[in-house]
Amino acid sequence: MEPKNRLQRLRQQLAQKEIEAIWISQPENLYYLSGCEGLEGYLLIGEGNLLVTDFRYVEQARRQSPDFEIFTISGKMADWLPGLFSGHKIRRLGFENHHLSFAAYRQMEDVFRKLQTPIDLIPGDNLMDSLRMVKEPEEAELIYQAVKIADAAFEHLEKELKPGVSEKALAWDIEKFIRENGSQPLPFEIIVAAGPNAALPHAKPSDYVIQEREPIVVDIGARYKYYTSDLTRTFYIGKMPGTFRQVYQTVLDAQLTAISYIKSGMTGAQADAIARQLIGNAGFGEAFGHSLGHGIGLAAHESPYLGFTSKGVLTDGMVFTIEPGIYLSGWGGVRLEDDVVMENGKLRVISSARKLM
Amino acid sequence: MEPKNRLQRLRQQLAQKEIEAIWISQPENLYYLSGCEGLEGYLLIGEGNLLVTDFRYVEQARRQSPDFEIFTISGKMADWLPGLFSGHKIRRLGFENHHLSFAAYRQMEDVFRKLQTPIDLIPGDNLMDSLRMVKEPEEAELIYQAVKIADAAFEHLEKELKPGVSEKALAWDIEKFIRENGSQPLPFEIIVAAGPNAALPHAKPSDYVIQEREPIVVDIGARYKYYTSDLTRTFYIGKMPGTFRQVYQTVLDAQLTAISYIKSGMTGAQADAIARQLIGNAGFGEAFGHSLGHGIGLAAHESPYLGFTSKGVLTDGMVFTIEPGIYLSGWGGVRLEDDVVMENGKLRVISSARKLM
Repeated sequence: MEPKNRLQRLRQQLAQKEIEAIWISQPENLYYLSGCEGLEGYLLIGEGNLLVTDFRYVEQARRQSPDFEIFTISGKMADWLPGLFSGHKIRRLGFENHHLSFAAYRQMEDVFRKLQTPIDLIPGDNLMDSLRMVKEPEEAELIYQAVKIADAAFEHLEKELKPGVSEKALAWDIEKFIRENGSQPLPFEIIVAAGPNAALPHAKPSDYVIQEREPIVVDIGARYKYYTSDLTRTFYIGKMPGTFRQVYQTVLDAQLTAISYIKSGMTGAQADAIARQLIGNAGFGEAFGHSLGHGIGLAAHESPYLGFTSKGVLTDGMVFTIEPGIYLSGWGGVRLEDDVVMENGKLRVISSARKLM
Repeated sequence: MEPKNRLQRLRQQLAQKEIEAIWISQPENLYYLSGCEGLEGYLLIGEGNLLVTDFRYVEQARRQSPDFEIFTISGKMADWLPGLFSGHKIRRLGFENHHLSFAAYRQMEDVFRKLQTPIDLIPGDNLMDSLRMVKEPEEAELIYQAVKIADAAFEHLEKELKPGVSEKALAWDIEKFIRENGSQPLPFEIIVAAGPNAALPHAKPSDYVIQEREPIVVDIGARYKYYTSDLTRTFYIGKMPGTFRQVYQTVLDAQLTAISYIKSGMTGAQADAIARQLIGNAGFGEAFGHSLGHGIGLAAHESPYLGFTSKGVLTDGMVFTIEPGIYLSGWGGVRLEDDVVMENGKLRVISSARKLM
């Protein structure tokens, strides 16, 4: 990773917004910019690079963030914030308004009002999101490593999947495989949802015992050097009846069509509409109640978003999921999720776990 | 769990603060009040109980939150918030100012200003914290189950701890044991920090191979039905030299003294001072740079806090950690952490993993 390049790109954005410095508080952004693992604290990026943290992380920050000066804090923000900004030359300070709590904002505002040279707090909006959503080649490679682990987990799963195993037991079996094949702690809890539970897009694995002749939705992610993957497959044990085949085929068509037709320059909403229209035409519009996809990276869900209100434009270098689904209360559901990268204006699928059809 | 009692206690607090309803957004609070697992969304608690979520969680909310009316949302807050509050009778609406982002606050404020009957947003401050920090007997029992799993993990660890194992391998061995003995996904990443790494209070397990004759700090937690435990022990393989014995004994004395002397009615700062003074007198004051403890419950770190600026008062029914530590850069560290419950005005230790002395 190249925090130096990232800091440089961030400074360009600050200059464009006429912000002299920015106050970073969001955990993934702390890592993205400083390289310090698991840091709790703040960064102040302006003329210099300041890392603000307490006793617990100071030694680690010294080791992992050599480009940063370290400011050690203890106690409440009101105690240390004035000292940190005494003698500053900042008029306009950006902050992460989608992350910083209202209470923290108010505390900062109170302190800044009392300084000799007051500071205005300027919402950073999606400034960091927009930096992170276009991946460096090294980041795309780390995501690809996380995808390979998830692909291998599905291969392993196909051997273990049989009637009589509980959702929970299967989820734990998959988790062990993922962890023992190079993944850090998982980016999200594995979903194994069988039968009627498969109608819940975000079901938690339960003691429900997997049967023949019902849909089984499995959604897994791995984390490799902090970068995530996110894949879903739907299984069926025994001869597939017409309804299941029709639902599965519809979801698959929607996914493949979206993957073929999504191009750079489209908005997230335009991308989403491709799959949504196809599922709607098949008569399942109401049953596809979530977005088509989301970015993956340091977070399991990040920009870009591909939902029916997503205005952001898709461009080269973005890595995201394509995951249409159909959920029918009482019956179950089908979701298929692959990870893709936008290259030369179109999508390349980077996951390869087998599908039923 | 008894969401009904909790909702009733919350309503009493709202009445005291002259707030007619409260908007809940913090994940643990969503579960605490609704019983819906892994919910993403909001609760509006006032005259009635409303659960606000999207397609992905609606079916689960119907199953798990029978006391709540469900309001299904999609898209951006600005799209659905006006409809949700049309025809309302609320003048003062509480919100979780320590959780809600500044951006979300601003969006709500914008919508509320345009309503026929405007709504004032009132910071809830520590309203939910203060409900959650006194545990119901059933909650204390769930924490105790989580503590028993962590205790058993230390017994297991003592058999596995030998020179030549990496921090990472040992951490994964412990994690498997915890998960296979009844724990949900862990509340925090296990710390195994050996030799110089033990000087980092929040070290991440690395490829460093554990040796004889160095301190090894191991910090683990389990999660049982969403309630957490948090325990630390420090190990040493081989004959313990004088320095290690002295540091260990100082930390142990500080811990046992704090446990004996902490009484209900003390502030968190007074509790912290007991251990801090003892460590200071031994000449290690600078080396104990974090707080003495923190509450445990649905979160691994929650109220009450026992730090040198903690003004909150400790009372019966609270469950928290007592975890003094001494960290010496280049040498390593010692931390001992037990879980305690305040009963009849004094502390009862609920963890029982063995110590070296």
